[in-house]
Amino acid sequence: MTAQSPGDGSGTGTTTIAAIAGEVGVSVATVSKVLNGRADVAPETRARVEESLERHRYRRRTKKKPVGTGQIDLVFHEFDSEWAMEIIRGVEAVTAPAGVDVVLSQLGGTHHPPQHWLDAVLARRPLGVLFVLCSPTPGQQAQLRRQDIPFVVVDTDSATTASVPTVGSNNWNGGLLATRHLLELGHRRIAIVSGPEDVLCSRARLAGFRAAHEEAGVPVDPDLVRYGTFYLDAGYTHGMALLNRADRPTAIFAGSDMQALGVLRAARQLGIDVPGGLSVIGYDNLEVAAWTDPALTTIDQPLRDMAGTAAHMMLDLARGEQPRTTRIDLVTELVVRESTAPPAG
Amino acid sequence: MTAQSPGDGSGTGTTTIAAIAGEVGVSVATVSKVLNGRADVAPETRARVEESLERHRYRRRTKKKPVGTGQIDLVFHEFDSEWAMEIIRGVEAVTAPAGVDVVLSQLGGTHHPPQHWLDAVLARRPLGVLFVLCSPTPGQQAQLRRQDIPFVVVDTDSATTASVPTVGSNNWNGGLLATRHLLELGHRRIAIVSGPEDVLCSRARLAGFRAAHEEAGVPVDPDLVRYGTFYLDAGYTHGMALLNRADRPTAIFAGSDMQALGVLRAARQLGIDVPGGLSVIGYDNLEVAAWTDPALTTIDQPLRDMAGTAAHMMLDLARGEQPRTTRIDLVTELVVRESTAPPAG
Repeated sequence: MTAQSPGDGSGTGTTTIAAIAGEVGVSVATVSKVLNGRADVAPETRARVEESLERHRYRRRTKKKPVGTGQIDLVFHEFDSEWAMEIIRGVEAVTAPAGVDVVLSQLGGTHHPPQHWLDAVLARRPLGVLFVLCSPTPGQQAQLRRQDIPFVVVDTDSATTASVPTVGSNNWNGGLLATRHLLELGHRRIAIVSGPEDVLCSRARLAGFRAAHEEAGVPVDPDLVRYGTFYLDAGYTHGMALLNRADRPTAIFAGSDMQALGVLRAARQLGIDVPGGLSVIGYDNLEVAAWTDPALTTIDQPLRDMAGTAAHMMLDLARGEQPRTTRIDLVTELVVRESTAPPAG
Repeated sequence: MTAQSPGDGSGTGTTTIAAIAGEVGVSVATVSKVLNGRADVAPETRARVEESLERHRYRRRTKKKPVGTGQIDLVFHEFDSEWAMEIIRGVEAVTAPAGVDVVLSQLGGTHHPPQHWLDAVLARRPLGVLFVLCSPTPGQQAQLRRQDIPFVVVDTDSATTASVPTVGSNNWNGGLLATRHLLELGHRRIAIVSGPEDVLCSRARLAGFRAAHEEAGVPVDPDLVRYGTFYLDAGYTHGMALLNRADRPTAIFAGSDMQALGVLRAARQLGIDVPGGLSVIGYDNLEVAAWTDPALTTIDQPLRDMAGTAAHMMLDLARGEQPRTTRIDLVTELVVRESTAPPAG
């Protein structure tokens, strides 16, 4: 049995729910339940309906709701980050004037939403979804597209494909700028405490770190390359391990300002002066980076602008407008303060 | 003309919309629009309908929606505070397991919501509203009650009356503990950089500061009592002014950890050692307080617990359960770290 519709198999996106129901041999109500993320459909039936919907490239044909009455979802991989508030501020600065409400959630540290989270979103039908440091799986992307719910990812992990609208910052350039700064000061043993290895931005910054070394003809010591979470504890733990080495580095490039605070603490506990005995550079340029002692040299990642750009892009998509580009990297910049200096003679 | 209903004038809350409409001489649709926060009602008509609704103590009689399908509003007076994320985490830890979504907004620094914000909430009809460092006006409280939308205030400003469910912390005790600690170390010239004078928690902390002085028989120098925002800049500006005095204080009690970071910066710029030449104590016990150099002595304000308690209270109210108490102050505690010491001989 095949779907009886003009769009049958042609991929024109004109297949009706009735045609899908006919092809799969279920009721129209069942197809509707699958589309709306309802839980009361048998998994096997659901899979068959999903398969048929995807094959026919089914898209819900709805009139666009006027922006100004709806909600968007803003979902973080987790809240345990000082910079989540920067993202929230950037999003709210765009959505509040547009009369759009923000529904906030977090995924407890995972990088893809659980299906029950997505089902709840599908049932609510927001104007769109902003994913921060997390992204929908390909199957979830298909579900969102079928329901005509646009989504944009802020930053990105390695699972994100080119078809996903993404706003990030130039992490490779940030890694390059930070490392060049340390090399130009004369450092030759430079450690990096990177973010998690499975997060694309961490890998890009590390690649920038390596590129700067190559430029300068300085080899990278693999023992000085560490991975951790972006938080204080990781900076402290790796900082202690690195600084307790006989051949300790003269400079540490931390993957975040919070990691850098952890490195500063480790140095303080070990009686190592910053920047006299150790240079430390952070990443993000959070408000607090300007107020630590010594004030942090860091890479400015324009988090509010990134969030605002992503929110604008999503509202454009929600209005049915196709943005000229759906992959934007904002510029990162070096901010020199007090925590970096030439290595001790 | 008077409302034709059993509850007419008796305050039993059984007046119908039709009765209100009859009394005011408008259509049922108009009364409904006023209840739903719609803008398309003439101000004069709206005022008359509001007056009649209030006089008859009209309450919408709705079946309680099952918690687990709804949303709550979480509104901050502003986001420019490191501790907003602590509040968000505390709320989310309660709402997520309950299957309740959080709609996030901020009021741009004002302490009462503008009417258009409340109108949007009334139109959406969330399970309830959590106000953080802001509160509805008495008129707005009446509107929320008529629509059967419970609300809880986290912390409180001086405009909040005893009838408003509130979760705070014992600010007076916090001020007392911080000041006692400094007095016990031997300080006799202690400055306070308080939060805004029109915020009740600031006044309570200042009262605790004064009470500790009274206990110890030490007079408070009015020149050493300052008011400012809770942010870094206020701590820095007041810190500079206080520390540039000929008779500068030997200790500063800051109204927030962020203010304390500003005071630390001022001391650093003036070459004053902390705690050798100046003791500094903060308030809040944010994560960052443990990682500054020197690590901050501070008052622990259990922000996550406060937020979680408020969220629980609001979900109880949304289920139609009356909490045993609707005014709760959680306990504040002194956390001694490195930024306080006896004054220099």
